[in-house]
Amino acid sequence: MLDKFKDECGVMAVHNHREASTMAYLGLHQLQHRGQESAGVVSSNGERLYMHKAMGQVADIFTEDVLSKLPGNLAIGHTRYSTAGDSAVLNAQPIMVDCNKGMIAIAHNGNLVNANEIRSRLEGQGSIFQTTSDTEVIVHLIAQSKEHTLPEAVCDALRRIEGAFSLVMMTRDRVFAIRDPRGFRPLSMGRIPNGGPSGDTVVFASETCAFDLIGAVYERDVKPGEMVVVGPEGTFSRFFAAEMKQSACIFEHVYFSRPDSVVFGRPVQTSREAMGRQLAKESPVEADLVVPVPDSGVAAALGYSSESLLPFRFGLIRNHYIGRTFIEPEQRVRDFGVKLKLNPIRSLLVGKRVILVDDSIVRGTTSRKIVRMVRDAGAKEVHVRISCPPTISPCYYGVDTPSKGQLIASNKSIEEIRDYIGSDSLAYLSLEGLRVACAEGEKTTYCTSCYTGVYPTEFIPLDQIQPMAVKKP
Amino acid sequence: MLDKFKDECGVMAVHNHREASTMAYLGLHQLQHRGQESAGVVSSNGERLYMHKAMGQVADIFTEDVLSKLPGNLAIGHTRYSTAGDSAVLNAQPIMVDCNKGMIAIAHNGNLVNANEIRSRLEGQGSIFQTTSDTEVIVHLIAQSKEHTLPEAVCDALRRIEGAFSLVMMTRDRVFAIRDPRGFRPLSMGRIPNGGPSGDTVVFASETCAFDLIGAVYERDVKPGEMVVVGPEGTFSRFFAAEMKQSACIFEHVYFSRPDSVVFGRPVQTSREAMGRQLAKESPVEADLVVPVPDSGVAAALGYSSESLLPFRFGLIRNHYIGRTFIEPEQRVRDFGVKLKLNPIRSLLVGKRVILVDDSIVRGTTSRKIVRMVRDAGAKEVHVRISCPPTISPCYYGVDTPSKGQLIASNKSIEEIRDYIGSDSLAYLSLEGLRVACAEGEKTTYCTSCYTGVYPTEFIPLDQIQPMAVKKP
Amino acid sequence: MLDKFKDECGVMAVHNHREASTMAYLGLHQLQHRGQESAGVVSSNGERLYMHKAMGQVADIFTEDVLSKLPGNLAIGHTRYSTAGDSAVLNAQPIMVDCNKGMIAIAHNGNLVNANEIRSRLEGQGSIFQTTSDTEVIVHLIAQSKEHTLPEAVCDALRRIEGAFSLVMMTRDRVFAIRDPRGFRPLSMGRIPNGGPSGDTVVFASETCAFDLIGAVYERDVKPGEMVVVGPEGTFSRFFAAEMKQSACIFEHVYFSRPDSVVFGRPVQTSREAMGRQLAKESPVEADLVVPVPDSGVAAALGYSSESLLPFRFGLIRNHYIGRTFIEPEQRVRDFGVKLKLNPIRSLLVGKRVILVDDSIVRGTTSRKIVRMVRDAGAKEVHVRISCPPTISPCYYGVDTPSKGQLIASNKSIEEIRDYIGSDSLAYLSLEGLRVACAEGEKTTYCTSCYTGVYPTEFIPLDQIQPMAVKKP
Amino acid sequence: MLDKFKDECGVMAVHNHREASTMAYLGLHQLQHRGQESAGVVSSNGERLYMHKAMGQVADIFTEDVLSKLPGNLAIGHTRYSTAGDSAVLNAQPIMVDCNKGMIAIAHNGNLVNANEIRSRLEGQGSIFQTTSDTEVIVHLIAQSKEHTLPEAVCDALRRIEGAFSLVMMTRDRVFAIRDPRGFRPLSMGRIPNGGPSGDTVVFASETCAFDLIGAVYERDVKPGEMVVVGPEGTFSRFFAAEMKQSACIFEHVYFSRPDSVVFGRPVQTSREAMGRQLAKESPVEADLVVPVPDSGVAAALGYSSESLLPFRFGLIRNHYIGRTFIEPEQRVRDFGVKLKLNPIRSLLVGKRVILVDDSIVRGTTSRKIVRMVRDAGAKEVHVRISCPPTISPCYYGVDTPSKGQLIASNKSIEEIRDYIGSDSLAYLSLEGLRVACAEGEKTTYCTSCYTGVYPTEFIPLDQIQPMAVKKP
Repeated sequence: MLDKFKDECGVMAVHNHREASTMAYLGLHQLQHRGQESAGVVSSNGERLYMHKAMGQVADIFTEDVLSKLPGNLAIGHTRYSTAGDSAVLNAQPIMVDCNKGMIAIAHNGNLVNANEIRSRLEGQGSIFQTTSDTEVIVHLIAQSKEHTLPEAVCDALRRIEGAFSLVMMTRDRVFAIRDPRGFRPLSMGRIPNGGPSGDTVVFASETCAFDLIGAVYERDVKPGEMVVVGPEGTFSRFFAAEMKQSACIFEHVYFSRPDSVVFGRPVQTSREAMGRQLAKESPVEADLVVPVPDSGVAAALGYSSESLLPFRFGLIRNHYIGRTFIEPEQRVRDFGVKLKLNPIRSLLVGKRVILVDDSIVRGTTSRKIVRMVRDAGAKEVHVRISCPPTISPCYYGVDTPSKGQLIASNKSIEEIRDYIGSDSLAYLSLEGLRVACAEGEKTTYCTSCYTGVYPTEFIPLDQIQPMAVKKP
Repeated sequence: MLDKFKDECGVMAVHNHREASTMAYLGLHQLQHRGQESAGVVSSNGERLYMHKAMGQVADIFTEDVLSKLPGNLAIGHTRYSTAGDSAVLNAQPIMVDCNKGMIAIAHNGNLVNANEIRSRLEGQGSIFQTTSDTEVIVHLIAQSKEHTLPEAVCDALRRIEGAFSLVMMTRDRVFAIRDPRGFRPLSMGRIPNGGPSGDTVVFASETCAFDLIGAVYERDVKPGEMVVVGPEGTFSRFFAAEMKQSACIFEHVYFSRPDSVVFGRPVQTSREAMGRQLAKESPVEADLVVPVPDSGVAAALGYSSESLLPFRFGLIRNHYIGRTFIEPEQRVRDFGVKLKLNPIRSLLVGKRVILVDDSIVRGTTSRKIVRMVRDAGAKEVHVRISCPPTISPCYYGVDTPSKGQLIASNKSIEEIRDYIGSDSLAYLSLEGLRVACAEGEKTTYCTSCYTGVYPTEFIPLDQIQPMAVKKP
Repeated sequence: MLDKFKDECGVMAVHNHREASTMAYLGLHQLQHRGQESAGVVSSNGERLYMHKAMGQVADIFTEDVLSKLPGNLAIGHTRYSTAGDSAVLNAQPIMVDCNKGMIAIAHNGNLVNANEIRSRLEGQGSIFQTTSDTEVIVHLIAQSKEHTLPEAVCDALRRIEGAFSLVMMTRDRVFAIRDPRGFRPLSMGRIPNGGPSGDTVVFASETCAFDLIGAVYERDVKPGEMVVVGPEGTFSRFFAAEMKQSACIFEHVYFSRPDSVVFGRPVQTSREAMGRQLAKESPVEADLVVPVPDSGVAAALGYSSESLLPFRFGLIRNHYIGRTFIEPEQRVRDFGVKLKLNPIRSLLVGKRVILVDDSIVRGTTSRKIVRMVRDAGAKEVHVRISCPPTISPCYYGVDTPSKGQLIASNKSIEEIRDYIGSDSLAYLSLEGLRVACAEGEKTTYCTSCYTGVYPTEFIPLDQIQPMAVKKP
Repeated sequence: MLDKFKDECGVMAVHNHREASTMAYLGLHQLQHRGQESAGVVSSNGERLYMHKAMGQVADIFTEDVLSKLPGNLAIGHTRYSTAGDSAVLNAQPIMVDCNKGMIAIAHNGNLVNANEIRSRLEGQGSIFQTTSDTEVIVHLIAQSKEHTLPEAVCDALRRIEGAFSLVMMTRDRVFAIRDPRGFRPLSMGRIPNGGPSGDTVVFASETCAFDLIGAVYERDVKPGEMVVVGPEGTFSRFFAAEMKQSACIFEHVYFSRPDSVVFGRPVQTSREAMGRQLAKESPVEADLVVPVPDSGVAAALGYSSESLLPFRFGLIRNHYIGRTFIEPEQRVRDFGVKLKLNPIRSLLVGKRVILVDDSIVRGTTSRKIVRMVRDAGAKEVHVRISCPPTISPCYYGVDTPSKGQLIASNKSIEEIRDYIGSDSLAYLSLEGLRVACAEGEKTTYCTSCYTGVYPTEFIPLDQIQPMAVKKP
């Protein structure tokens, strides 16, 4: 998929490291594929919290000057794809507040399904909201909890929210890592042996690729329904909710996570190759070349190639020098947006029957342009293979899928989609094939609601939280 | 006074103008002497509120692009001197929140004396705070009020807070302007006849100089204890508190307000000249020249000159091209910081007996450097005359005076101060003289606590609101 | 005069100081009234030259980081008002070149009258030009000189150019300061006793106000036709041209120089006050107040007041917070541009007969707006007094006067101008009065060509150097 | 190769297009792999030239505002890797000058070997140089030519320079494209049918990938020794030098050019795959996986895989979110710099015998870190295969190779290099194998001096042009 999904995030936490904010920043650098338009870090020196968050890429936001103003041995960080407009900076994370439990900072990956409901209730009781983020709801619940210790209050709050939440939280002397009972989003724990002033550094990150850069060793995942607290008295874990069937987001394996990460206990690269192999078994086609849509289609294309024994080739080259806004000539160039990012290698494609492997088709418009680009480069046939089932339903757990009306597979048959994108054939991976490729089984069960429309939570929001100002008193 | 006081602010509000945010921005431009390090505007198009706030000067923050994203016929704005560090952006105003009364934006000039007390109580009840600003307290009180209409809820909240507050507030369709019952800070109301789509534009500003640039006509001051609401149903006024003796901040006349403003019903320039005249009567001295410390000592020096019949001359030239951070050579230049801003005209000063007129002496260090600069330029005698009484006590009503320990007049006799700053003589205006110069009387009574240590509010905070993170749970 | 003249510059040079580039930068800071839109510094560590120049204000351009990359004990600097468009950065100074005389950097205040002629000849011989600045011509002449030593080559070049030039120049180990034989523009020499590693620091600056900030003592002016060279062998001086009658720019006293500078051996403040006094003698009028147009009319207004015994008052307040581009509302505010910068004090002006003192009237449009502003504020009469004669002719020596067609005094009688600007009376200072005020005599004779149309150089350019690309081969 | 070579450039020219500067900018966007630290465009509207150049990435430099100030139907552009320090902006291209041939702008890819010699002679004759770029030499020679027409003068100049030069040049109404007689660097010509106001748009670019984005069709290469001129009278071509044996830079196929470009008439991707295949034939090894060092080793690795029938896998993931300066923790992370860019996929590598394919080894330090990274990820064996011969000699024709002392292959045997980088085996492609892979033959002969130390030009510079200021007069 050439375009980014918009609402994902990456979180990071560091306990007991002399350069905690630098470690958090380096971790965020590795997590930018999950959201690269705003980033923030909150650190603590044991006395107070320090925050910096801004729009932009991680490496631009965190200069040496900025990091020097984020002192202390504890830090949490967040990176996200920000929606446009005035709410962008407002909604950047972490959120830092003062309340009767002291200073708290929190960063959230996921989406709550009952945030509107709770927010309405809290507003009715006189609470004020300064963002449109569902994360603010969590902080209110913690502050209002009647429990006497912070860990108890947090658990109390967590029991009131439903949906997807992989959270990192920080007080002046403790780091918390929390995963919702269904375990929608990944959250891993790592360790830098003797990394800090008082022994091992403990770190948490959305994906294990964040550990590699900072020299941390993966230890285990935070478990569904678990809260891990690292503080002066050491590390302790407790489960705030009864065990439920896991609903790990299968789309992390299909698209979101980096191939060098291990999520839900399984290397992403392994899943993707298996998807490609399975796809080749399910939907073979006579052809000359297997060509990925870079970068997201590469691993599945390699799997398809090794199963089909058809040669894998980079027939489309990706240009990584893309600025934020790009000026298009008034005298229109056809498919300009796609051409900015991709260019075909004619010498490879000309006269060939090409199997084009991509991870998803969302609206279909980009796929249509890519197929046209490959044909224009001289390909004789273009066969599109997608490494997951048709996306028919929106996600309510943290992926910014368009509404049903915009999802092409929700409105057209596969043959109609093929006709729209202009390929000679089109096939999707079966749901069963995808499950197998991701090794569903005892260890992990997946949420596949975007492919089935069947949602694991009882409650599904009719609408997302309304923009702040639309509501009228 | 060469250095800026730090905690003052300017506020602005606009109702019924097609370019409300531009009008607010222009008003803020005129109010920058009250705080020039951050600024913000919130606008409303009747449906929702739009916000932009940032660090920096008004003209740099509000580009055409930014203003185009602040649509609608209503706007409020705020400019302030921001304290350094991470809290700076956090505490920028206006504050915009969502609550059971709908969307509210608020901007505040002044300081509450019971904010800590209320905040502790609110936190105890489970409220969360995202800034260290006392203004956030007001919003919580409004949200938690049991009153059923917003105006009632606002009045309810206002009755719970004590101290100095000139507020502008906005909902999606109404603008509020409010002044505390003692009327510490100024707040004026103006009108652009037929300025907007539905008749007259109504504007509010901290000082009347903001009206001149946007073509508004001064109408009246918002009265102490009054709340003026301008909305779809027209303009109405109500008093939320019983009448009290006014405590208008006399320092607005001495230093803060622009000389082209009319505050508390009296032209500032008139007061300042009268101070200078009175000072000449009280503390004459044989000399050749009256020289102001620019820019704040100019008007009083003119008054002193006209009363004493001694010639007024600009013996010190002010350099207005000062960037935020200025690089000092390692090989130190004596009194470098003052020299960056001021330069003496030797030809005027050499061999002369000079009366140097300034508005205040705070710590005494800057005065000492200026006296030395004038002597080094050849002056035979330097007589310092200050257009107000010795500043002996901190202000709790919105002026960031240093603590008693740092106020030279709180710790030294006038003769000791004279000795410290190195002048041949030193005299301050008497408190009675200052009252007369500012026309205290039936119309206006002043707060002079910084000169007397006698405070008009029952309650004086032992400390300001603690920095967010110092508190430990 | 409220608007800036555009083509002036300030130059600065430093020899033998451990922080030479910082000293140059501080000097430029003081010279920004001569041009504040671009600035540059070249330094030398004895081995090579280092350059930094950019658009913007001095304090923004020279950060600590930038200064750290300008090492060495020698430096020259330049600040200027840059013309708009693509040529701006191209034409920023100093110019640094490599040639058969080694590395040379040069910075120029003034304007050559035979630059076009020389440039055409040089181009004919195969020279290339990379700027549109006349300064580049000088460098070519130095490089092409057949003289064997650099000082000889420089003198050779200087004898070929005509017009106004106050130059500072630098090689890797020498600083040069040069003034044209007629001495149009000022250039002063100062000294910081034992300021550098090898004894005294020698500095040169367009105005003496630059010396005050860096602790340098004014020593003497560079003389017309003199070249002062400071290098390893000490300081030496030579005259490159026969003595001529001096043509010091009288407009430096009227407007350009800072009042705290001594130019052409005379304190600017003294001249300006004398202009005001003389003006009061020549053109008295019955009135209540003398009000300056700030800041440039202040000194003359003080002189007028002291001669006429009419009270001086600041009836117009200047707003110094002006950003580069200011957004004007679409719904036009009358005289918006002037209102941004000036605001009247109504309480002072209402009902009064006001004498408004300014230094010049160029096009008349701004004066017209200011007169209207003073009347709108309630003045009963407005009498305009200008502290120099009518400006009727353009300057070819470094002041960017508009062409005759745009100079109101070149096209209208005084009565017509009075009618245009809407004042009750209008008077200019006489040329003779101006000469007296500036103490013309044995010591100094002035160029007054902008008031007379009589030019001291034989040659007057028919047009300025053409923009680079208009010429067609 | 993970690190960038530093001195390459990309050039672009556009004739007859309504948005010529936008087309140039889009072309430069595609050429940024040849140098991404500064960029410039000069346009012409037939009357004059307009220039903008700056440090930074193409998409950041050319905003809509900037492009609107580059009007006209002609444009040339340049993008380059800038060397650090003060010379960076100075040396940015295009260079624009005014001379007796009119306005000329020029952009250069390559390096002259006799620039120092010519520059010394020109300086001796009185020429001045404002950059340290050898390109400025060319402009001087054109200006000084006695020929009467510009095309003749250009040919005259070109006959005096030796080395590598692919040039685009522009006057107010003509575009020139020129290639040195040995044809070191590529330069292609394309066409947008009916793209401009007067028929076809003609474009030139360093690589054909620039044509694809703007909808231009590749027509032919500019030939070695050819000058193509496109002007009002149409397109004409002439050869300014006698035919010589071509010395096309073979490193363009090995590393520089994009795989989707056709250079020297041959698709780059085809060459690279052939290199990989040939390498597999020459240096097979028993192993489990072929893994490229991304991105530059990918095509050769695919070739190696398809020849060896060993599976190709992305065992190293490249992080493309790299900011300009990256903050390293003080508590050092081993091989931090490489880890920022690359991360291994452990699940793929663990227990495997890995063939690591890269395009070059320069200093050896990066290769050493990558080998270590692959071993740390669990690989059992690491066999390094390089798709060209050992780099033993610096390039004088436009590639910024380090000096012999820094080239590991110039100082160590292959076995010593293997030992240094820590691999189990190491093999380079043979020179003969490389020639075959690049299809050397009648059509193209290559310069291979970096692998042989045998240079095609008679003259080799003993040193590059000296930094401007080292020279002492």
